[in-house]
Amino acid sequence: MSARLDKDQALKLRAKTAFPNSVYGHQSTRAVSTLHPQFFKKAQGAKLWDVDGNEYIDYMCGYGTNLLGYCHPAVDEAAAKQQATIDVATGPSETMLLLAEKFNEKVAHADWTMFAKNGGDATTVCVMTARAQTGKSTILVAEGAYHGACPWATPAPAGVAPGDKMHQVVYQYNNIESLRTAVEIAGGDLAAIVVTPFKHNARCDQELPTQEFAEACRALCDAHDAALILDDVRCAFRFTLGATWELLGVLPDLCAMSKSVANGYSLSVVTGNNRFREGASSIYTTGSFWFASVSFAASLATVQAVEEESAIEKIKQSGDLLRRGLAEQAVSAGFEFRQTGPVQMPLFAFNGDEKNQLINRFCEEAVVRGVYMHPWHNMFISAAHTPELIASTLQRTEEVFTAMKNDR
Amino acid sequence: MSARLDKDQALKLRAKTAFPNSVYGHQSTRAVSTLHPQFFKKAQGAKLWDVDGNEYIDYMCGYGTNLLGYCHPAVDEAAAKQQATIDVATGPSETMLLLAEKFNEKVAHADWTMFAKNGGDATTVCVMTARAQTGKSTILVAEGAYHGACPWATPAPAGVAPGDKMHQVVYQYNNIESLRTAVEIAGGDLAAIVVTPFKHNARCDQELPTQEFAEACRALCDAHDAALILDDVRCAFRFTLGATWELLGVLPDLCAMSKSVANGYSLSVVTGNNRFREGASSIYTTGSFWFASVSFAASLATVQAVEEESAIEKIKQSGDLLRRGLAEQAVSAGFEFRQTGPVQMPLFAFNGDEKNQLINRFCEEAVVRGVYMHPWHNMFISAAHTPELIASTLQRTEEVFTAMKNDR
Repeated sequence: MSARLDKDQALKLRAKTAFPNSVYGHQSTRAVSTLHPQFFKKAQGAKLWDVDGNEYIDYMCGYGTNLLGYCHPAVDEAAAKQQATIDVATGPSETMLLLAEKFNEKVAHADWTMFAKNGGDATTVCVMTARAQTGKSTILVAEGAYHGACPWATPAPAGVAPGDKMHQVVYQYNNIESLRTAVEIAGGDLAAIVVTPFKHNARCDQELPTQEFAEACRALCDAHDAALILDDVRCAFRFTLGATWELLGVLPDLCAMSKSVANGYSLSVVTGNNRFREGASSIYTTGSFWFASVSFAASLATVQAVEEESAIEKIKQSGDLLRRGLAEQAVSAGFEFRQTGPVQMPLFAFNGDEKNQLINRFCEEAVVRGVYMHPWHNMFISAAHTPELIASTLQRTEEVFTAMKNDR
Repeated sequence: MSARLDKDQALKLRAKTAFPNSVYGHQSTRAVSTLHPQFFKKAQGAKLWDVDGNEYIDYMCGYGTNLLGYCHPAVDEAAAKQQATIDVATGPSETMLLLAEKFNEKVAHADWTMFAKNGGDATTVCVMTARAQTGKSTILVAEGAYHGACPWATPAPAGVAPGDKMHQVVYQYNNIESLRTAVEIAGGDLAAIVVTPFKHNARCDQELPTQEFAEACRALCDAHDAALILDDVRCAFRFTLGATWELLGVLPDLCAMSKSVANGYSLSVVTGNNRFREGASSIYTTGSFWFASVSFAASLATVQAVEEESAIEKIKQSGDLLRRGLAEQAVSAGFEFRQTGPVQMPLFAFNGDEKNQLINRFCEEAVVRGVYMHPWHNMFISAAHTPELIASTLQRTEEVFTAMKNDR
């Protein structure tokens, strides 16, 4: 181990005792390479600094929470102003209502809105609402899709009891035939089809939805009195200020959003249509911090900044720049480099790289050059990833490809 | 309706459309009287101001989140300082590790610590850990106890599928015989006994645990290779800077804390002992905002302030003052007034008040006099409830009792 991560190593050692087994969850010590730092001390714009002072252009964006740039002035100012008067209290402030009205205005299918803290809270509220409204239990989920870490959704079997994953039937993303078969298996008990805006499963190629698949999801829900639940937790606000499938003209009944909706402040959102209003009213769901006004103020400021700064267009342009630049570099260096998913949320791979040696090497060579990239989880572009930062990134990835080429 | 809540009424009307059916959850419009305001614009110390500008001494403390006073200067300063450098990002900061080490130091049974966002996240992580470690599924829960609003725990049946509440056996709080029977029903499948530090169920008298009951919980878990899970979400830090049953000398294996641990910033905590380290390591649990450094910085500052300001002692003294004052007033006015639960988290009732008319009237008369009290959910005292504020409260409750007496 080089001295580059000395302090990080020392903290990791302490973390092994202080936590059950180092850092857990999506940023688990087991999930990142030893060349990727575990602990950071500063985040600004599109950049991160680790505890040893190394600087990175960050292509994980807090796993999607960073939309406009870390420490965005307008968002943080709105949050600080709110914090000084009222945040979590015995009841909500008007800010909660204003934000719900904002979502009802911006999101095409939304007649009502609810708020929570985790993406998994939001998907859970959607599922509970669908079950309460339809009086049925079975939900359809795509194979390998991630809908949260609560027991019904967590991808690992440990700690999950048999009851937790009952009432679930699995289909294949983009495969209408498998969707129809799953509907048949559900029989008369279909409460909801749960689907992500695109296939963003970890450890495999990302896949955009076909128009036919999205429409089939909608039609099957209509035909079987079920809810179409869009799990937009990871995508919301990166493609449009609404439910992402609005871009396909397919409206969900219920939509779960989180991650970037308050540019890093803890918030998740459920939007629903009037068909599911009664179901949503009937469930008991809440949390100690669900009325936190700071997160609502941050989200209102985020919506405003997205519009004023044309953030979504900027993200797409920078994502395009990065994709084209990397593609050219890979061809020049003689690598069959695969870029999947939308340019706003890319994932990279190398053809024929069965044991992931090339992609792991690529990300390790990038990270030591100050570009934080992930080998098997989709990455994210923010509006703070300026064309200048993309150019700076490409200078370094040029070196990465060269190093890898020289090693062959 | 008086003009006192004009603006509140207007917001409530909009809320009926913007949300599924007005404000939901623990502060649901259906749960509070029409004389209790729904929307607030300011929270400072022990006080709240509603959107119409009415001022209240607040005895709900944000349902327990307010421990030291709303907008506590030292906590908010630590949070703001952290916010300016790094909050939610691609990885955690050292603050997460420092806070875990602080909990491991302060909490007697804690060998390791994990963090989440909701109290329900923490109880869920405890249950998953117990199941992963023991390889068993059944958990024992006390009748009417609240452990969160996630499907396995939510008190309402709507939206709950049959699988969600499988593997649960109910016992009666403080009833060792019923606990033994529940253990027998679980047979060889007992993963955990889940218990709150005292019985703080809504809509009934609160009850302190007997020493024998707490020890029986511990002994039965030991005898059956199960986890003793203390759901300390609502009580933690109001009685001791540790797991609340430390005061009884009974240590849990796993403890879920939240509410007041960061004085209002969204945070929940799981502490565990080494016996359950492997189980906790094996589950996959995480959330987009679980590495939020601002909440960790706020919690570190909260621990420091609790110690420096002798907050726990202050809370007890003020709770004592209030209880004695109310008891005297009630006797003078000729009411059989019942105060249950610890003085730090009181609940009031009137003997023979089968339809809750007297307690509802009491809280309504209090709230129009600027004292926010709840008729059927335990209340909370904070360290900002100074003896002067208690005295001011008692002046007003004196009027309340007089008004009620004159009406008989």
